[in-house]
Amino acid sequence: MKAMGRLLAASGMGLALAAAVLPAAAQDAGMKQWTRGKGWGWVWGPQDEVGALNEMTDASRAAALRLATQGKSYDLGLPYDRNSYRWPGHNPGEIISFRTPEGVARQRDLPFTTAENGNGSHTRWHSSAMFISDNVATQIDGLGHITVGEDNHWYNGFKEGDWGGNFGIRKADVTTIPPIIARGVLIDVAGQKNMEALPAGYEITVADLEAALRAQNVDVTPGTVVLIRTGTARYWGESGADHAKISGPDSAGIGLAAAKWLVEQKGALMLASDTSGLEVGPPRPQDSAAVGGSFNPVHVYLLVQQGVHIGEFHNLERLAADRVYEFAYVATTNAIRGTVAGTALRPLALR
Amino acid sequence: MKAMGRLLAASGMGLALAAAVLPAAAQDAGMKQWTRGKGWGWVWGPQDEVGALNEMTDASRAAALRLATQGKSYDLGLPYDRNSYRWPGHNPGEIISFRTPEGVARQRDLPFTTAENGNGSHTRWHSSAMFISDNVATQIDGLGHITVGEDNHWYNGFKEGDWGGNFGIRKADVTTIPPIIARGVLIDVAGQKNMEALPAGYEITVADLEAALRAQNVDVTPGTVVLIRTGTARYWGESGADHAKISGPDSAGIGLAAAKWLVEQKGALMLASDTSGLEVGPPRPQDSAAVGGSFNPVHVYLLVQQGVHIGEFHNLERLAADRVYEFAYVATTNAIRGTVAGTALRPLALR
Amino acid sequence: MKAMGRLLAASGMGLALAAAVLPAAAQDAGMKQWTRGKGWGWVWGPQDEVGALNEMTDASRAAALRLATQGKSYDLGLPYDRNSYRWPGHNPGEIISFRTPEGVARQRDLPFTTAENGNGSHTRWHSSAMFISDNVATQIDGLGHITVGEDNHWYNGFKEGDWGGNFGIRKADVTTIPPIIARGVLIDVAGQKNMEALPAGYEITVADLEAALRAQNVDVTPGTVVLIRTGTARYWGESGADHAKISGPDSAGIGLAAAKWLVEQKGALMLASDTSGLEVGPPRPQDSAAVGGSFNPVHVYLLVQQGVHIGEFHNLERLAADRVYEFAYVATTNAIRGTVAGTALRPLALR
Amino acid sequence: MKAMGRLLAASGMGLALAAAVLPAAAQDAGMKQWTRGKGWGWVWGPQDEVGALNEMTDASRAAALRLATQGKSYDLGLPYDRNSYRWPGHNPGEIISFRTPEGVARQRDLPFTTAENGNGSHTRWHSSAMFISDNVATQIDGLGHITVGEDNHWYNGFKEGDWGGNFGIRKADVTTIPPIIARGVLIDVAGQKNMEALPAGYEITVADLEAALRAQNVDVTPGTVVLIRTGTARYWGESGADHAKISGPDSAGIGLAAAKWLVEQKGALMLASDTSGLEVGPPRPQDSAAVGGSFNPVHVYLLVQQGVHIGEFHNLERLAADRVYEFAYVATTNAIRGTVAGTALRPLALR
Repeated sequence: MKAMGRLLAASGMGLALAAAVLPAAAQDAGMKQWTRGKGWGWVWGPQDEVGALNEMTDASRAAALRLATQGKSYDLGLPYDRNSYRWPGHNPGEIISFRTPEGVARQRDLPFTTAENGNGSHTRWHSSAMFISDNVATQIDGLGHITVGEDNHWYNGFKEGDWGGNFGIRKADVTTIPPIIARGVLIDVAGQKNMEALPAGYEITVADLEAALRAQNVDVTPGTVVLIRTGTARYWGESGADHAKISGPDSAGIGLAAAKWLVEQKGALMLASDTSGLEVGPPRPQDSAAVGGSFNPVHVYLLVQQGVHIGEFHNLERLAADRVYEFAYVATTNAIRGTVAGTALRPLALR
Repeated sequence: MKAMGRLLAASGMGLALAAAVLPAAAQDAGMKQWTRGKGWGWVWGPQDEVGALNEMTDASRAAALRLATQGKSYDLGLPYDRNSYRWPGHNPGEIISFRTPEGVARQRDLPFTTAENGNGSHTRWHSSAMFISDNVATQIDGLGHITVGEDNHWYNGFKEGDWGGNFGIRKADVTTIPPIIARGVLIDVAGQKNMEALPAGYEITVADLEAALRAQNVDVTPGTVVLIRTGTARYWGESGADHAKISGPDSAGIGLAAAKWLVEQKGALMLASDTSGLEVGPPRPQDSAAVGGSFNPVHVYLLVQQGVHIGEFHNLERLAADRVYEFAYVATTNAIRGTVAGTALRPLALR
Repeated sequence: MKAMGRLLAASGMGLALAAAVLPAAAQDAGMKQWTRGKGWGWVWGPQDEVGALNEMTDASRAAALRLATQGKSYDLGLPYDRNSYRWPGHNPGEIISFRTPEGVARQRDLPFTTAENGNGSHTRWHSSAMFISDNVATQIDGLGHITVGEDNHWYNGFKEGDWGGNFGIRKADVTTIPPIIARGVLIDVAGQKNMEALPAGYEITVADLEAALRAQNVDVTPGTVVLIRTGTARYWGESGADHAKISGPDSAGIGLAAAKWLVEQKGALMLASDTSGLEVGPPRPQDSAAVGGSFNPVHVYLLVQQGVHIGEFHNLERLAADRVYEFAYVATTNAIRGTVAGTALRPLALR
Repeated sequence: MKAMGRLLAASGMGLALAAAVLPAAAQDAGMKQWTRGKGWGWVWGPQDEVGALNEMTDASRAAALRLATQGKSYDLGLPYDRNSYRWPGHNPGEIISFRTPEGVARQRDLPFTTAENGNGSHTRWHSSAMFISDNVATQIDGLGHITVGEDNHWYNGFKEGDWGGNFGIRKADVTTIPPIIARGVLIDVAGQKNMEALPAGYEITVADLEAALRAQNVDVTPGTVVLIRTGTARYWGESGADHAKISGPDSAGIGLAAAKWLVEQKGALMLASDTSGLEVGPPRPQDSAAVGGSFNPVHVYLLVQQGVHIGEFHNLERLAADRVYEFAYVATTNAIRGTVAGTALRPLALR
């Protein structure tokens, strides 16, 4: 079926027909810089801040959107509040009632809010002040998140000494992540294993991914956003407050072998999962060694070396329950300069 | 053409065909609670926190997405930083480098980051701490943003005494705004008037909207997200730092008459513009009087009375330049409990 | 010796001589509103925001300062950082490098900092942004901290409905706490019991206080700031990071009986200890009942009913080690409007 | 009188007597490292973080405190709130009602606060969350505030590459500033000139200081904290909200000549004024050149080169009104690790 799709697309048949019948076909062709067996790397020119997402084109977006035939929308965001589980290296946060109707009335610091000044309806408002990390809840890690080397460089060789700053980073910050609109594929590893969630520290292997894809009868074609399910998000609940429950499966994830297979053999455009860090923790010694010694070698490989963005804490529970394995993935980050990750996002899977 | 679309859809032809030829057709039919001449109101039951967006269905979403035939993606977000223009009632903010590679190395508070502990690659990272308002840059106002009355109630009668709190509001917060996927229409008022931007304090009238729609040869059908262009966003630049330039046209906007026409006569699902507040400021006396005296009567009308969300600071410049007047509007807010507005968003217009 | 001091002072001898020989004498006389057996209460007029600290006069301050004959200065502050133990009801915090010399150089957003503009010396600077609670580390609770009643009133009947606001409280905030300069007395309960620190949940009784005072050969005279030592601060270390160690003795403290004895029988001007909350936790049932049911009845009694400030997390270790039981207590809070407690303070004991 | 005091002290008379009669005498003798014509510098050993304040001894503190014969306490702090004037290079701030009695009641997230759980008195509380700079309102600049050189070093050669970090600085932070207890002298330059406040950009000269000291009949002796009055604080009002009024005289201050005279000829232990930056702005070209080119040469000279702390925004209005020119200066900073300046302080002048 997939093979036929490729054939039909190549044969020049009209896009409309191909899309209706063979939605995944268009992504197989036309990668600009991806090389099987190598992936990407710093191939987009010395000023590039976008990485693999440069592969997106009008054609690839249109093809992805054609997967959304039913108008079904799956919200992949996990709601965040002050009690939510987060990686302990990130700052805690508070969402605080800033202006409240009673406070506005009592403070009387804004003349236009008083009845004497025409506000007979007692119009007032709520707003919130947030102190928050750019790395909480449902995230997309930007290419400037991780650095390596004594020169502290990130993707494409941007160095701290050149592009750091007081207000976040000045190259490859989150505003450079384009809206992501691509074919998405769920790989339900926990589902394939008939588990609620993977055990703590479980390394997802290439074999696991292949088995799940086979069971789901879907494939990762070049340009696909891959969402890998460990089952962790089922313990998030209202706000991720049960840290003990979450922290176990949260350490399950892919190792370097699976990451390389997805990027270099399959052309995955972006990798995401339902955990805080995508990769298995602690890292396997050979994975750490492969990047020169690191506590998160998959991050180094994807973000720094390949220019592939990472999605974290994506809620994949409803997709899995509905057995939706192929869809249009649509995600936008916030547009906040200097920040390194889209935070508390709500990516969509459209079917 | 529109009429024929309606006819064809009604005749039961296959969706695939109808979508290809007549993308906007589906929205005309099937509103659940909207009444011409009345709009919505508190019609969705006493527990409802969603308002007019309840009108969205799989069918309406599918129809909207069928407008995105070319795979073109317009990012409607305006980038925010510490210097960005904002409504002075909201708190200032800072985006601050929290963890930096040099700082991690010097602080030495995390053993796993040292070379002695296996981090030979010097893997380190950037993260940012943000102190930020939930009402900055490109926003979608939630239904709990504005309150009226001595009991400080918002949409659907939720009262501060019942549903306020320390950590934001507990009814109709931003997490209750569903992903918005609907037909979008740009009404380029500044363009129709051949102006760079509308003058300060200019009230956009029903006649202005009708003239622009006529010139654009497009209509607002029930269930459409309406984006009204004043031209203000052209002065935003890199980060909205030129407050003097922005603040003039930022006060142009619709009055109550135009808001009512769009909601009650045309069935607009949501109203947005490229200014900080959508409505003309200061409000016209009759508009203020119509809601009992208020400094922002259109907000009161839309958010509290009608349950219609408001989009603010949407960047409509590229849409206008490309004369794209009809598209799929796709927007998700952050998933941060208690907050009252999606902030620093990047809504999409897909074509 | 004490008695003789009183005699001499009363006899009209010159202050200079009296001070040199008999430092504590002056406080015994001249309380303005304190009544033995009753203490204070709302006795300072309906607008008062100061409470018992109104007792301070030039004479009482001069007498207190005369205790500082040796020029010895004891810093009673505990250093705070992001890891410090705090009452879990208060917000977490971060102290973040905001401007750094490297960041200023890289950001290049301030022309006057570049060499081209005359800054050949590369003058740059550090500053910090803090997100912090007003109730951390060494504190003095203001009279607006605690409220009771359905009308949420605090000391002197100030009601939330009248004097609340968005930016903290508008009556009896921390700026109304005058500089505190008074005779201070340490009551070393842990020392008298020969314990490193009192056990978790230990209630300090009147008998404990009397025994310690007797052993120390010092008395609480009206107008004295009383510092009660449990030994908790010895576990604070560099920054209060050992929460497990601190949290045990931190729950030791006085019950209502001891608080009343100190205020009503002895005229204590302010009560402080080396714990996060001064009072024993959880409260004894009879103490809770005595104020109508409360989780911190001693706070209610002192702050709301008596108008007596509470000092918390005072580091009393060096005073105890040096057996300094009588001294001049000098403390100023920050001058931040709306806040309810001096935070991360460094009160002094001068000897 | 001063001269006689010096004589008596030198003659070896007992401290108690000398102190009673001649309070300022002790400071003239016994400086440890100060050299006339040179001041201090990096003279306290390679690990020193304290600088000139190392000069304080029990004797000097005792002598200073003996100036406080009348028990008069002058609060030198300026109250800070969200509207207060600050140097634009520092982050804005908000003081926000965090926990409020109504919020606690409505949020219902803390079981112990409900009546069902024994809280029949409705005990609740206020607390505030602050987002604040460590450089606002009444400050004492620490020795790590200013850096110079390509190696970004501060006082005593501490380099950013060694002692920077994510959570503020790790050498000479504010916690290393000891409680400051020293003889204080007000030099009322504005008063001597019979001006409300000095003009914008006025450079205070050595002659100005000498004239004012002569008129006041007081001298700066080695070890004295010098407070220089421009009159700026009279425009602070309730909270420093009138930026236009403040910003004029705020730029008046000393140049390098006056700073050197005070430190090198007179042995001033610390220099403070009632402005945001002590020194005249913009700097005089010769002052800038003297430190290699700098926008604040007096800061470089005092903090980096001499190890002399700087006091800013001290409220000197009441001292001037009462013509109190000599007093005990007592100031403590907050104990917040990593911060570089005591902020929103309330130093005291005791008389």
